[in-house]
Amino acid sequence: MKKLLIIIIGILINNSLLAEDGYRLWLRYNTVHDPALLQQYRQQITSILSPGDADGLFRAQQELITGLSGLLGKQISMQMGVNNGTVMVGLPQHFSFIRTLVGDTALARLGEEGFIIRTTRRDGKSVILITGNKEAGILYGVFHFLRLLQTHQPIQQLNISSTPKIQLRLLNHWDNLNRTVERGYAGGSIWDWQRLPGYIDQRYIDYARANASIGINGTVLTNVNANAMVLTEAWLQKVAALANVFRQYHLKVYLTARFSAPVEIGKLKTADPLNAEVKQWWKEKANEIYRSIPDFGGFLVKANSEGQPGPQNYQRTHADGANMLADAVAPHGGIVMWRAFVYSNESPEDRFKQAYNDFKPLDGQFRKNVLVQVKNGPIDFQPREPFHPLFGAMPQTPLMMEFQLTQEYMGFATHLVYQAPLFKEVLNADTHSKSSSTVAQIIDGTANNHTLTGMAGVANIGSDINWTGHPFGQANWYTLGRLAWDNSLTSAQIANEWIRQTFSNKKAFVDTVQQLMLASREIMVNYMTPLGLHHIMGYGHHYGPAPWYNKAPRADWNPVYFHKADSIGIGFDRTASGSNALAQYQPAVRQQFENMATCPEYFLLWFHHVPWDHKMRSGKTLWETMCDKYYSGVDSVRWMQRSWNRMQNFIDAERFNQVRQLLAIQEQEAVWWRNACLLYFQTFSRKAIPAGYEKPDRTLQYYQELSFPYAPN
Amino acid sequence: MKKLLIIIIGILINNSLLAEDGYRLWLRYNTVHDPALLQQYRQQITSILSPGDADGLFRAQQELITGLSGLLGKQISMQMGVNNGTVMVGLPQHFSFIRTLVGDTALARLGEEGFIIRTTRRDGKSVILITGNKEAGILYGVFHFLRLLQTHQPIQQLNISSTPKIQLRLLNHWDNLNRTVERGYAGGSIWDWQRLPGYIDQRYIDYARANASIGINGTVLTNVNANAMVLTEAWLQKVAALANVFRQYHLKVYLTARFSAPVEIGKLKTADPLNAEVKQWWKEKANEIYRSIPDFGGFLVKANSEGQPGPQNYQRTHADGANMLADAVAPHGGIVMWRAFVYSNESPEDRFKQAYNDFKPLDGQFRKNVLVQVKNGPIDFQPREPFHPLFGAMPQTPLMMEFQLTQEYMGFATHLVYQAPLFKEVLNADTHSKSSSTVAQIIDGTANNHTLTGMAGVANIGSDINWTGHPFGQANWYTLGRLAWDNSLTSAQIANEWIRQTFSNKKAFVDTVQQLMLASREIMVNYMTPLGLHHIMGYGHHYGPAPWYNKAPRADWNPVYFHKADSIGIGFDRTASGSNALAQYQPAVRQQFENMATCPEYFLLWFHHVPWDHKMRSGKTLWETMCDKYYSGVDSVRWMQRSWNRMQNFIDAERFNQVRQLLAIQEQEAVWWRNACLLYFQTFSRKAIPAGYEKPDRTLQYYQELSFPYAPN
Repeated sequence: MKKLLIIIIGILINNSLLAEDGYRLWLRYNTVHDPALLQQYRQQITSILSPGDADGLFRAQQELITGLSGLLGKQISMQMGVNNGTVMVGLPQHFSFIRTLVGDTALARLGEEGFIIRTTRRDGKSVILITGNKEAGILYGVFHFLRLLQTHQPIQQLNISSTPKIQLRLLNHWDNLNRTVERGYAGGSIWDWQRLPGYIDQRYIDYARANASIGINGTVLTNVNANAMVLTEAWLQKVAALANVFRQYHLKVYLTARFSAPVEIGKLKTADPLNAEVKQWWKEKANEIYRSIPDFGGFLVKANSEGQPGPQNYQRTHADGANMLADAVAPHGGIVMWRAFVYSNESPEDRFKQAYNDFKPLDGQFRKNVLVQVKNGPIDFQPREPFHPLFGAMPQTPLMMEFQLTQEYMGFATHLVYQAPLFKEVLNADTHSKSSSTVAQIIDGTANNHTLTGMAGVANIGSDINWTGHPFGQANWYTLGRLAWDNSLTSAQIANEWIRQTFSNKKAFVDTVQQLMLASREIMVNYMTPLGLHHIMGYGHHYGPAPWYNKAPRADWNPVYFHKADSIGIGFDRTASGSNALAQYQPAVRQQFENMATCPEYFLLWFHHVPWDHKMRSGKTLWETMCDKYYSGVDSVRWMQRSWNRMQNFIDAERFNQVRQLLAIQEQEAVWWRNACLLYFQTFSRKAIPAGYEKPDRTLQYYQELSFPYAPN
Repeated sequence: MKKLLIIIIGILINNSLLAEDGYRLWLRYNTVHDPALLQQYRQQITSILSPGDADGLFRAQQELITGLSGLLGKQISMQMGVNNGTVMVGLPQHFSFIRTLVGDTALARLGEEGFIIRTTRRDGKSVILITGNKEAGILYGVFHFLRLLQTHQPIQQLNISSTPKIQLRLLNHWDNLNRTVERGYAGGSIWDWQRLPGYIDQRYIDYARANASIGINGTVLTNVNANAMVLTEAWLQKVAALANVFRQYHLKVYLTARFSAPVEIGKLKTADPLNAEVKQWWKEKANEIYRSIPDFGGFLVKANSEGQPGPQNYQRTHADGANMLADAVAPHGGIVMWRAFVYSNESPEDRFKQAYNDFKPLDGQFRKNVLVQVKNGPIDFQPREPFHPLFGAMPQTPLMMEFQLTQEYMGFATHLVYQAPLFKEVLNADTHSKSSSTVAQIIDGTANNHTLTGMAGVANIGSDINWTGHPFGQANWYTLGRLAWDNSLTSAQIANEWIRQTFSNKKAFVDTVQQLMLASREIMVNYMTPLGLHHIMGYGHHYGPAPWYNKAPRADWNPVYFHKADSIGIGFDRTASGSNALAQYQPAVRQQFENMATCPEYFLLWFHHVPWDHKMRSGKTLWETMCDKYYSGVDSVRWMQRSWNRMQNFIDAERFNQVRQLLAIQEQEAVWWRNACLLYFQTFSRKAIPAGYEKPDRTLQYYQELSFPYAPN
């Protein structure tokens, strides 16, 4: 016994050598630290009963064994027979009582991905049943069950039934074939193309596990600025090797289709979507893909946008292009996600309006297996945007949401910004296109009776050991999955679960960090782009502030185009007296925004050119309010630092220090944003920064001369 | 007690969830598994006595506590007072008895980096003393002591004194400022420039620890194809942040100096090394660097080679260039490493000869703080090269060895190739320039009485979790450090230590894997470039075989230039009847190589154009022997696979599977090399592949048409 103890203590000490490097994400499965709760869980969970010969359940069983054994601190294994505390995991065909217990209607309602977790009795014993119509549902149910324990929830009388609100829950990787990642701030691409298909990195497996744990069921592997090479035979073999791993976790693989591929890698002279040879080429390409990846998801396409080729090169419409590809994958059950992020190379039209102008007329013209993928706002993933006017404007077309997890405009992987409040703000926005038509209802198909529905997040994942660079970046990945499954979850609920799984269940820690996360997005808006400012960041790399920038080759890549500051005031007039972009919204929305008295102040400069002396609701002027916002943004980052510093004894040193260092950088950069923007806007307002505020310690010229030649982009 | 056990077992199970991902390298410190030995060690080591206020010893103390606590499976802490088993760690000024015990002469002999580990008695107790003249020595001593335990060596009567044979033991990173790595196969650069100086990644600390553990004391952070930007103020701040971490582990930082920097980032019109303004610019730049990095090591320079600027642009010599930089850093104690890897853009001369022709005449013209850094062979890190003719040819100049750890020509991070036998083959080669003048003796300064000495390895480190991509790539990093410290270590000794620390001390495992490692380099030579073939790989990326390639913009980038196969035979005649490169060697060497009867067959085609029917020593023809070699290379990879597969139960599943998958790729690529080369050379030899060998299952055309547009390069 003493010898055993010595060896055990030895291993314990080794354990302490293993740092919390963040690799395990929210799937740490450390033993429950609350002794009373641990005791309870151990009585409530004693073994697993699940068919050993059901290959389709293997990963769910494996996860349950690993997770429960970790959480309960004792080996929980698969056993034949039922005891008190047996977790029964199987399909209706595995346990004949399920159909009677649950009922055919309730089962049918689960669809292919839903699950039921229920405490019930078998042979006089209290057991927990995890079931669903299909293996995918069971996998999701297992992860849900593990999450209950990870977050210290009671499990004595479970009666849970859950189905996803959205069908396609996807990550979009903007990963290039040379392993760089466009707008990637967490190292290079995790796809090691050079060593695929032969080498299956453990990361691929853990990536699939992590996605499955939050219900993400698809991943687009490649950049929307696409490379046709990925559609060649050699690369499809590599893709198939990934698909073989991901399939075990019900994660489908999608690719970006470069529209000019028939010319670039085929031997055709055109990529005209109405050309018979082109159609045939894509059909054969689809057949080839499905031969090696029978469950291939389909294509994501960026066409006729920012230099990408598309159907307009041949005087065809986006619908012509999308439908041609849709016909190619339709026989295999594939879909096409056609991005609405387009703006013309030449058009002098307000960029805000262009996607709507291009796409709204096409409503009703798309095939049944096409979704139009729309960014949350009309410009480009700014810290705050009003909802995209296409939402609600194309009732006959399934619109898919595109959020951006990677923080292109939100401080890269250096700023702590929890994005759920941003996502929720958009989802909760009422488009007024029908009686019940929030953006969430448009997206989840309930507003217009679509069954094909989708939500995508542009991934923030890279080769950094902790996946996302910033430890809190993981929360945004987590949020995408959870919100796509259930868009009624609140930002607070999601933060709460994530914190408990990722760091600690201790109340003081959970409360403090949750508060910090919930505030973080508004704090960033305040120090970057308060009051409706947008697109005033550095050119090209988008790092830091550059509201003065006016040298881009096209007007609407320049910050000055967006803020329009002058001696009178600041802001983009999008009312009828300006670009009239507001006309793209339903009257109720338009009226709210076009009236300065009703327009939310946080959207003000999105829609109005406002005099510097304009009285805000507080009674202060616009200029004073802008100063207040910028200064409060910086002050709030300092509050975040103080809050975090109090957390030192709650978690491991490694992650504590990471966040501490990153918050220090965030503070410096918040000051940089504040000073650079106010000094610059001050050249128009010609007003002083109100007394009592710390004065900028650098000149405007200093900020204007900064350059960042190797900033990631 | 029961409750404690339950909690402990809980943590144990968690521990088992933590995979062996390779991040910990050879510093795992898992508890000694042999119970008898563990018992012994626990009696022999009980506590640590070391001055708590000696900042310079902090990292050594910390490592000793962590390492011993892990290895012994119980907390070993710093205590005041001496017991049986106390490990005493300090400088002579910390423990007054040291000077008497060791003696001034022995202490002086240790220099700044040497250490002594000695079992002795204090106050009637048996203690272990780790000492040195300086903190660096103590750090190295601590790592050496830990290695004794990690490799299960007896420690009852220690009497070790060790000093490094070579002064500068360096890694050269070919890392670019955009985080790509030239010839990097393990992900991107570990230098996260974007988040420096504010964010200190844990990886930087563990990188420094790993280097210190094997005696590496310097690192060149940036690519020899240099970017002047790293010498600007903003970047130097980032470099200084790294230096602040590395200094704690006695690891100095060096940078590559782009010769044209005075023009590119200064405002000068010239970079002429004899121009006064240029000299002044570099002096001021050096002053600036040393202000923020007082222990900055100096510069590594690639000049007038492969497009890099250099003194020859101004009709100056390499010595003019090197001396100008040397003068700039000399006041601060810095050095310049000037690479001899040069070949003219236009010269039709055998590339083998050009470095010698350029550099030998400059012997004696370099400043005292200049080393000329010479690759091990005359061409470029081929699987086998004869030693570089400059070794022994410049007695007045310290020549520094440049090995390449990253496997540019050795199968990337996919082939298991243990490079110690390659390094030792070169180090053991006799230059015959003096009576005792092996390459090792040239390099370590003993042949020509140099005290400034150096050995560098081009790093194989990247952002992959296990640092080197291939788990066995770690062994090459390890070897560089160990051989630079002590070039008398054998390949077997180094492999043995590395295996024990990295994987397991179990005899069957150590024996099998050691045998496999020791054979691996010759196996690679056989399936890639047997009998003295060289430089027949794919163009640009250097991936795979392309002996047919003849489209490069200069002759000596083409494989056909190097093998010169024709209907008569194959090989590069470098005797007097050919390029006469052999004249660059001392007569004894030249005579051995120029006579086909005495030339080692493994060098044959380096020096001779040999008829296909030439009878080799075995009695077989050249063609038959070439076939034998290529086929035996493939067969041996299969033997490696079988050997490895027997190791499954000795180690963790994760690393076992990684190596298993990589060996499978290696086997496929060995077949590719064999088939492609033999099918191609067969078009000249017009002879059949001997009966009994499996026939190539693809045509030569198939291999010639393969292309790898995104292979890393």
